[in-house]
Amino acid sequence: MKSILMGTLFVILALSCNSEASMDAKKYNNKSSLEKESAPTGESVSYAVAIHGGAGYQTKESISNETDLAVRKALNAALDAAENILSKNGVAGDAVIAAIEILENDPNFNAGKGAVFTNEERNELDASYMDGAKMDAGAVGGVTNIKNPIKAARAVMEESPHVLLTGKGAEEFAKSQMLEIVDPSYFKVQSRLDAVRKAKARKEVKKHGTVGCVARDKNGNIAAGTSTGGMTNKRWNRIGDSPIIGAGTYANNNTCGVSSTGHGEFFIRYAVAHDISALMDYKGMSLEEASNHVINEKLKKAGGEGGVICVDKDGNISTPHNTPGMYRGYVTDKSRGVAIYGDEELQKVEH
Amino acid sequence: MKSILMGTLFVILALSCNSEASMDAKKYNNKSSLEKESAPTGESVSYAVAIHGGAGYQTKESISNETDLAVRKALNAALDAAENILSKNGVAGDAVIAAIEILENDPNFNAGKGAVFTNEERNELDASYMDGAKMDAGAVGGVTNIKNPIKAARAVMEESPHVLLTGKGAEEFAKSQMLEIVDPSYFKVQSRLDAVRKAKARKEVKKHGTVGCVARDKNGNIAAGTSTGGMTNKRWNRIGDSPIIGAGTYANNNTCGVSSTGHGEFFIRYAVAHDISALMDYKGMSLEEASNHVINEKLKKAGGEGGVICVDKDGNISTPHNTPGMYRGYVTDKSRGVAIYGDEELQKVEH
Repeated sequence: MKSILMGTLFVILALSCNSEASMDAKKYNNKSSLEKESAPTGESVSYAVAIHGGAGYQTKESISNETDLAVRKALNAALDAAENILSKNGVAGDAVIAAIEILENDPNFNAGKGAVFTNEERNELDASYMDGAKMDAGAVGGVTNIKNPIKAARAVMEESPHVLLTGKGAEEFAKSQMLEIVDPSYFKVQSRLDAVRKAKARKEVKKHGTVGCVARDKNGNIAAGTSTGGMTNKRWNRIGDSPIIGAGTYANNNTCGVSSTGHGEFFIRYAVAHDISALMDYKGMSLEEASNHVINEKLKKAGGEGGVICVDKDGNISTPHNTPGMYRGYVTDKSRGVAIYGDEELQKVEH
Repeated sequence: MKSILMGTLFVILALSCNSEASMDAKKYNNKSSLEKESAPTGESVSYAVAIHGGAGYQTKESISNETDLAVRKALNAALDAAENILSKNGVAGDAVIAAIEILENDPNFNAGKGAVFTNEERNELDASYMDGAKMDAGAVGGVTNIKNPIKAARAVMEESPHVLLTGKGAEEFAKSQMLEIVDPSYFKVQSRLDAVRKAKARKEVKKHGTVGCVARDKNGNIAAGTSTGGMTNKRWNRIGDSPIIGAGTYANNNTCGVSSTGHGEFFIRYAVAHDISALMDYKGMSLEEASNHVINEKLKKAGGEGGVICVDKDGNISTPHNTPGMYRGYVTDKSRGVAIYGDEELQKVEH
């Protein structure tokens, strides 16, 4: 039975930044983080972007001022990059790649540089990308030397006949596409290495967040992307939900785009990203209703911790999460906001 | 653009057996294979099983009498194995594993022994399994020495905290579970090796079918599984839809179980297996309506060739496919049938 291994490989969600919180999920009872959360609706926007840097146990007590500031700065830089493209009539896909590239290059997030370590003390990265106009997608799993896995995911969609490439094959493909290849040591961040050694000693598998972006451009096209280092101390070449279309990433111009973060196995089993789109498409739910139903009812009931960021065809934004915190932000032509903690509203700073 | 590679890596669906057909898809116009097809409905059944051995270009002209007979014999043996379990009050999951194991061990199908070869002339196998009562799942991707990948998929669900394990890691896990490990040469079938050499010379990637089973037991529990060798001449450690929960396999006791076969990239992009369940759940469609809508409207419009076998919570069976043929069969406590060609009805032999 699953419980045999679950006993020794205790899976807990930890925050995505370098410090670690040891809160007991069961003790945590911050209602506001479990309630619906959405950015401005009802106002007509010309473009809209949502980003995340991982859902987990971020609380004011567990995060230093320094990390708090660094994360907000990075989230804003990612939003700037996406907005800079969309405000000039650029396409949603370019905005998604630009925002995620910034988060991948920042060691505060578990994606690209800053990725967590496997049991074998390696960094194995996963990413996926979907274009909601073409309903086409690309993904890479378990890659170790591609500087920006999100770019490889998009290249798989655009330049190969496949959707999902893995390991050495995916790396060979990325090289053929002239993407930047780095020595695997590029990804090494000492605090992440310390974390996996601690996790190994305790026989724990720790979930450490993900980054993602969904954008809707002025022409109504939606794109979504997700990138991660996966779980600290993961084994057996485990692949989570981040490179799985329908689980970690989904985009459909007729409904919405979604990027997930959380305990990946639950997001795969519940086809979370596709399910939100299906509830809008087949049941007529709004983005807010659909995303909250999946995250705060279905997933929560099943014990699946995490959250999503979503943007719908009209530019509405929803960022529900059933964890204490989630690094998140949004920008439209009307306003922008970033937030970390569950009880923190997305600041609505007018442009 | 994708077209650059699509030009040299021409993807065609070919039949799953050892002979090869060279029919032009565009010339094919067998309406009956595109119409809805379903096994007995309206009669109350105590158990129900559907199986497939791959959708593709099976026609009476392209398949020898010998292969026709061997395939029907194997499909019936798989149905026997599943029925033997379910008629004695066994569980759906055991029936799925027993049926797929028989198809994996038979060189006539592209799964287990008989798997197609990659560009590097290796056999890389994918499989997944889902339990519709627990909404839990397991899968393996790109494994080369596990005799029955479907058993490894179920073990991932039952004995690991993960859903998807790949490559060497998945093999190490399977070994730790005492599953039968074979020398990779076990999977070699000469005709498959000849086929990949021909495909390499022509720079083609050929889709070669899959095997799958969905079962509903007397207690109303549904399980589904899928196993494949993937595409002939695949590269870059490509993973298709077969190990992807929501694309190749899905099971939910409240709706249905689904196993897919066809051009995997389309099945991933359209989250085919989950979409059929969602249409039943959120739009109130019957199994027949939902599965036909996805295969013969959505997928067909997008150019995605293939089919599914499905069993719903009441034991109804549907086996739509938009290809000329699909190796398929079903059995309930009332009747059984097997078929290969598109214009062939599932024979309804009374028990």
